[in-house]
Amino acid sequence: MRMLIKNVYALLPDGTTPLTNIMLEGAKISAIGEVPEDFHPARVLDGTGHLAIPGLVNAHTHASMTLLRSYADDMTLMDWLRNKILPAEAEMNRSDHYWGAMLAAAEMIRTGTTAFADMYGPFMDVVAEVVIEAGLRGVLCRGISGAAPYGEVKLADNTALYQAYHGAGEGRVFVMYGVHALYSCPPNLMKKVAAAAQKAGAEIHIHMSETRSEVENCLRKYGKRPFAHVESTGIFDCGTLAAHCVWLDDEDISIIKKHGIRVAHNPGSNMKLASGVAPVPRLLQEGVCVGLGTDGAASNNNLDMLEEVRLAALLHKVDRLDPLAIPALEAIRMGTEYGAQAVGLKDTGRLAAGQQADIALISLQNTAFCPKHNLVSLLVYSARSGAVDTLLAAGKVLMEKGELKTLDEERIMFEAQRCADRL
Amino acid sequence: MRMLIKNVYALLPDGTTPLTNIMLEGAKISAIGEVPEDFHPARVLDGTGHLAIPGLVNAHTHASMTLLRSYADDMTLMDWLRNKILPAEAEMNRSDHYWGAMLAAAEMIRTGTTAFADMYGPFMDVVAEVVIEAGLRGVLCRGISGAAPYGEVKLADNTALYQAYHGAGEGRVFVMYGVHALYSCPPNLMKKVAAAAQKAGAEIHIHMSETRSEVENCLRKYGKRPFAHVESTGIFDCGTLAAHCVWLDDEDISIIKKHGIRVAHNPGSNMKLASGVAPVPRLLQEGVCVGLGTDGAASNNNLDMLEEVRLAALLHKVDRLDPLAIPALEAIRMGTEYGAQAVGLKDTGRLAAGQQADIALISLQNTAFCPKHNLVSLLVYSARSGAVDTLLAAGKVLMEKGELKTLDEERIMFEAQRCADRL
Repeated sequence: MRMLIKNVYALLPDGTTPLTNIMLEGAKISAIGEVPEDFHPARVLDGTGHLAIPGLVNAHTHASMTLLRSYADDMTLMDWLRNKILPAEAEMNRSDHYWGAMLAAAEMIRTGTTAFADMYGPFMDVVAEVVIEAGLRGVLCRGISGAAPYGEVKLADNTALYQAYHGAGEGRVFVMYGVHALYSCPPNLMKKVAAAAQKAGAEIHIHMSETRSEVENCLRKYGKRPFAHVESTGIFDCGTLAAHCVWLDDEDISIIKKHGIRVAHNPGSNMKLASGVAPVPRLLQEGVCVGLGTDGAASNNNLDMLEEVRLAALLHKVDRLDPLAIPALEAIRMGTEYGAQAVGLKDTGRLAAGQQADIALISLQNTAFCPKHNLVSLLVYSARSGAVDTLLAAGKVLMEKGELKTLDEERIMFEAQRCADRL
Repeated sequence: MRMLIKNVYALLPDGTTPLTNIMLEGAKISAIGEVPEDFHPARVLDGTGHLAIPGLVNAHTHASMTLLRSYADDMTLMDWLRNKILPAEAEMNRSDHYWGAMLAAAEMIRTGTTAFADMYGPFMDVVAEVVIEAGLRGVLCRGISGAAPYGEVKLADNTALYQAYHGAGEGRVFVMYGVHALYSCPPNLMKKVAAAAQKAGAEIHIHMSETRSEVENCLRKYGKRPFAHVESTGIFDCGTLAAHCVWLDDEDISIIKKHGIRVAHNPGSNMKLASGVAPVPRLLQEGVCVGLGTDGAASNNNLDMLEEVRLAALLHKVDRLDPLAIPALEAIRMGTEYGAQAVGLKDTGRLAAGQQADIALISLQNTAFCPKHNLVSLLVYSARSGAVDTLLAAGKVLMEKGELKTLDEERIMFEAQRCADRL
């Protein structure tokens, strides 16, 4: 189907925001600019008073965990994890995982996100079903961890997920292999995961160097820093999305560059859990691909990617005492183009001919966008995600003028609350 | 007039959020709880599905500067100030100041703010008129700076503002004296401001120790750190609201405590301008009153106090590597109760009998508030200011179900854009 988004300000890859038109052909953008006389769209969206940006890409989250939003906050990490989150997760059944992921999907659509990388379990197949139903793009994996036989069962789950869902939903579901973290996944298990991923041709999603104690404990236990330790298992030979990467030294960064590891930076989660400040300006300078993620809603506590874009722009300025550390345009690229690269999506994350038609339309008719000296500054430093009023993924309209088109939001909130009340 | 907000979750001073009713008598809250049979309200607001919180207090801003939102970003401070902001400010006329402040008022109402402390000029009388028209509370001062005779003219302006507007708008306009900063205000001028404020019985609003270079230059020029230098001029004898207070040592903090100086912390501005991280957890531990401010929209770039509340909660956690540094309840108190104290408002900032009826109603019917394990966590870590749908100040409804009642938002945005286009 041909579609036209007419008379819209569009954030182009070069950072300009001209008033233009976006033409779609099926799931892709066919052209941006003047509308040719022979282009006859089946549908026209009026973009007047809106800024079109690439759909935001959440490069690291745990969607079903949205059910635990506000369940436990303002605690130390281990108290939070051992006494609240792990016991609650142990109670979560298949239905809880489904409605948690549905709640996440509704919030992502409302806030302009079209793609997300998800690591969780044990019911990742329900997350795949949510991706298909919602019309989003999902890069899914099972978080593999634990001693034998538990780790091996999770690995088998991940392989089953790959076989059943990789490429599903007209190609919107992607499957990776997930390694929870070096402290929860023994080296032998990591080697098995690496072998399975190699065999399938799949990439790997892993938490890396999130806290200082993770690095210290790794040194104590294995005599190596985290990146050297994980490198020795073969995990990095498959193509890797590494979440967090907060505590890095020169050796870590050289391993990241050597293997082309892409980083998912989670500023909101790193701030709230007091994990630390990742050296993102340096990674970007050294040519590392850095996307942005929200992490799970139990540690953020939302899935609002525009907020992560702003936090990325603000946090590194104050951390380096450098007001130029991450400019507005670089921050929004991290939330879109770089995020798409980070999670392994091809032809996604930019408004340009030939790219996937993943597009968020942001209303400029509100005080946060007034006056309009610079739309990129306004988008990053002033706007709130509530201004996103229309969203397309793969050329399909998921939200129009604030109304969800693929999901029943009222029912989702009702069912999610019911699941949460039982926990 | 008697008014009832019925069936609403209310954030009480002790941090609980019971489902209750709020009774108003004129400009004040008369009771919270069961509605007595003999309470006959002239008006009932249905609070079902809402959380009532005290109106947010913006303890430091420059309202008219909202006209320069997105005018210049991602620059070093001096380049930004000298080459962009100062030349633009020099062009701003009376009408620009009016529409800039009107734009600020509209944004503040939309985002749940009922009171703000403002330092700017030269047309602070138009800001007073905006406060009166909008129905907000404003604590206004002229930013006094410059060598003779300019500084003295500004001081005379501030005195004229005090005489004309202190107590205006049924007591919603308060006037302080403003000292821009020690680097822009010579010691002799500061002494004159202190004398004028003492004579009027007014307090003082000043920028203090915002950047490291401010401290270094003060030491070089005066042989003292900023707090000792300003103390010697008598400025702190009048009652002081000090904005920023980023670079403090033990001596500075002892001067702050000695004079009961209240602090306006501006996390968003301090992050964006790369000023540094104020030692807020320590100030709070030592019993200093710390409110929150947005600073001007040219350096933030919005007036969204819920965002400042979240940034305050997040920034100090990561800065101290302590997930308990500023818990959610303490953060929202900084944005309400402590902020009201900081700017010198009596009986304001808490939901309790006898307090001013400054109340924001936040809709809980959205994904960021689902599921509802803990309303305070949700408010601070998940919510977006777009969920504020009704706002009262001094018992008057300024916004109801998203519609502004005192201001014409469309016209304000039109006029503000027209002013901005001319600059």
